[in-house]
Amino acid sequence: MPYLVCSKCGDKYSVKDPVWKCFCGGLLDLEFTPVFDRQAIAARPHSMWRYREALPLEDDRNIITFGEGYTPLTTFKLGGREILIKQDQLFPSGSYKDRGAAVLISKAKELGIKEVVEDSSGNAGCAVAAWCARAEIACQIFCPASTSPGKTAQIEMYGAQLVLVPGSREDTSRAVLAAAETHYYASHAWNPFFFHGTKTWAYEVWEQLGWQAPDTVILPAGNGTLLLGAYIGFKELLAAGETQKMPKIVAVQSENSAPLAKAFREDLDYVPAIDKKDTLAEGIAIAEPVRGMQIVQAVRETGGDFLTVSDTEVEASLVELSRQGAYIEPTSAATTAAAARYLVNKPPSELAVTVFTGHGLKSTEKMLKILEHRRR
Amino acid sequence: MPYLVCSKCGDKYSVKDPVWKCFCGGLLDLEFTPVFDRQAIAARPHSMWRYREALPLEDDRNIITFGEGYTPLTTFKLGGREILIKQDQLFPSGSYKDRGAAVLISKAKELGIKEVVEDSSGNAGCAVAAWCARAEIACQIFCPASTSPGKTAQIEMYGAQLVLVPGSREDTSRAVLAAAETHYYASHAWNPFFFHGTKTWAYEVWEQLGWQAPDTVILPAGNGTLLLGAYIGFKELLAAGETQKMPKIVAVQSENSAPLAKAFREDLDYVPAIDKKDTLAEGIAIAEPVRGMQIVQAVRETGGDFLTVSDTEVEASLVELSRQGAYIEPTSAATTAAAARYLVNKPPSELAVTVFTGHGLKSTEKMLKILEHRRR
Repeated sequence: MPYLVCSKCGDKYSVKDPVWKCFCGGLLDLEFTPVFDRQAIAARPHSMWRYREALPLEDDRNIITFGEGYTPLTTFKLGGREILIKQDQLFPSGSYKDRGAAVLISKAKELGIKEVVEDSSGNAGCAVAAWCARAEIACQIFCPASTSPGKTAQIEMYGAQLVLVPGSREDTSRAVLAAAETHYYASHAWNPFFFHGTKTWAYEVWEQLGWQAPDTVILPAGNGTLLLGAYIGFKELLAAGETQKMPKIVAVQSENSAPLAKAFREDLDYVPAIDKKDTLAEGIAIAEPVRGMQIVQAVRETGGDFLTVSDTEVEASLVELSRQGAYIEPTSAATTAAAARYLVNKPPSELAVTVFTGHGLKSTEKMLKILEHRRR
Repeated sequence: MPYLVCSKCGDKYSVKDPVWKCFCGGLLDLEFTPVFDRQAIAARPHSMWRYREALPLEDDRNIITFGEGYTPLTTFKLGGREILIKQDQLFPSGSYKDRGAAVLISKAKELGIKEVVEDSSGNAGCAVAAWCARAEIACQIFCPASTSPGKTAQIEMYGAQLVLVPGSREDTSRAVLAAAETHYYASHAWNPFFFHGTKTWAYEVWEQLGWQAPDTVILPAGNGTLLLGAYIGFKELLAAGETQKMPKIVAVQSENSAPLAKAFREDLDYVPAIDKKDTLAEGIAIAEPVRGMQIVQAVRETGGDFLTVSDTEVEASLVELSRQGAYIEPTSAATTAAAARYLVNKPPSELAVTVFTGHGLKSTEKMLKILEHRRR
């Protein structure tokens, strides 16, 4: 029987409890033993739900789905080198966050929850709002007042209640935590079920590579929603004997907001305070990631590394990929910029996989600025 | 051996000729006998290229692909009735036009073409620009000067040369026809290879329904790019003995721009001149569709119908779908509005399929206006 366990005090909770953090304030993780049946998986429709026995839902009738997932794993060039990139910008709401929302909101339905709150710089809010709409669960999405109109319009069209919070991204986090005292918090940072959705990224890579793990995955590290999901997924595959190794996890931060890279490099056991600056890669600019040390430990454990990229590199990678027909949001290009740098001097035999995290259509204002900038 | 044939004078051309219309000025169609091998199809990756032997390309090495297609066929409610909707907004460039661009630009590469021109109110231009970027084919995209910044930014990011034409959509068509005197015209209206890409919509529906044709398909009719593709696809499946019937095609126009509905209702053998008005469904507001009579004839032949919808209906359908978590562009909601009307009083046994044509992220300005409108 699966259960929730506190990473701080070790207390356990039933998965039937609508809790998203421990009473001690600690982070909850889900203890769960997935089952993989390759023959059954291969015979099912191509969505992330084909790994049904590896997803922590009791009753199929609670699955809320648009048929999402199983995104293409496609070759692109980064700095002249070929690499496989998983096109998670092609999810219904336009980002990989749909993986997490699909499992979390299905679980919320299973728990009988009628209303949730979530905070987001944009993408997670869109994903949660979309799934809540389909699940007929009311939701409030807290966003920084500076969030682009493209994202807030999407959230409101889904019928969610948009709460714009003046100030920084961290101010928004504080505002939602207050609301979460009385509501279920469908958080992409706190809620363990979200990560048991994003872990499907690892399953799909495994299947698309012919049921094997890659040598290396290069993933963004803001709140670590995808990175920790991939870590869980590959770890489950290894434990189940479905793969023979754990991929090395290379984490990417913007050099303008890199608390975790600092913790990693300086061998700290806490997330240091930083002086966060604006960056093109706003989606991963998280000064105080709640699962920060889990991210650093996952990278350490897999023998990985942290790379930080400048906005100049982000813009260059965005343009390089656009010129190959890939339209992604600037935050996504931070990861590809780092992947390009990572690949330099690596042997061709190293099987590396990275990701497009969000659609370029989410960032029209930034695209117009970049085009203007390059015309000068 | 496949060949191109003029629908006006009957002249034939080799598929190795880089022609897009007959010397007599007539429309060219592709004569081609596809092959369907269900076992081979089912064993391949889930993209539109799984129907390889039904796509008119000689050499696999010319295939330009992002792994696109095989979009989810998902149940949504329209006016309280359930219907299957194919989510073609989930293509890489954000619309079903990618189906056509994938085959046409691959064919252009096969023909050794180095530069193309195309005109578009937005979506076809984005699709052609994306595929040209990946194919390393230069392209110029002609758009009305009023095209939304979201679409023009996307076209320019792909590296295409954007040519903004003052005046109406028809002025843009005239401008590109002049350019097409000296360039290969990668037209989603003229070029027959485009329709042999959009026909994959029919193949996928057929496979997703368990290798059968639906009773009815409800499809937009601007230039008829998807409608004529679906007509070709279902006709090929019928001719190959893969299905037992032709679906009834129900065509949708905006009541503010409905020349084909008028031709159909008045039993005309030409496309009448109309007084086109602005509409939320700008993507299907085509006053002079070059394949207009082919569209009308396809609808007549299948025992179908034309439905016209008001902007009020379009907005209501857009909101109804957003509230179910589907984010589509307003043009796309013209088709779903008509589908809702079509379903009234139809027996539950009638198997109808419709489509989401383009992503809501393409239309942020319009979404903001609609939200504003509904707040008043």
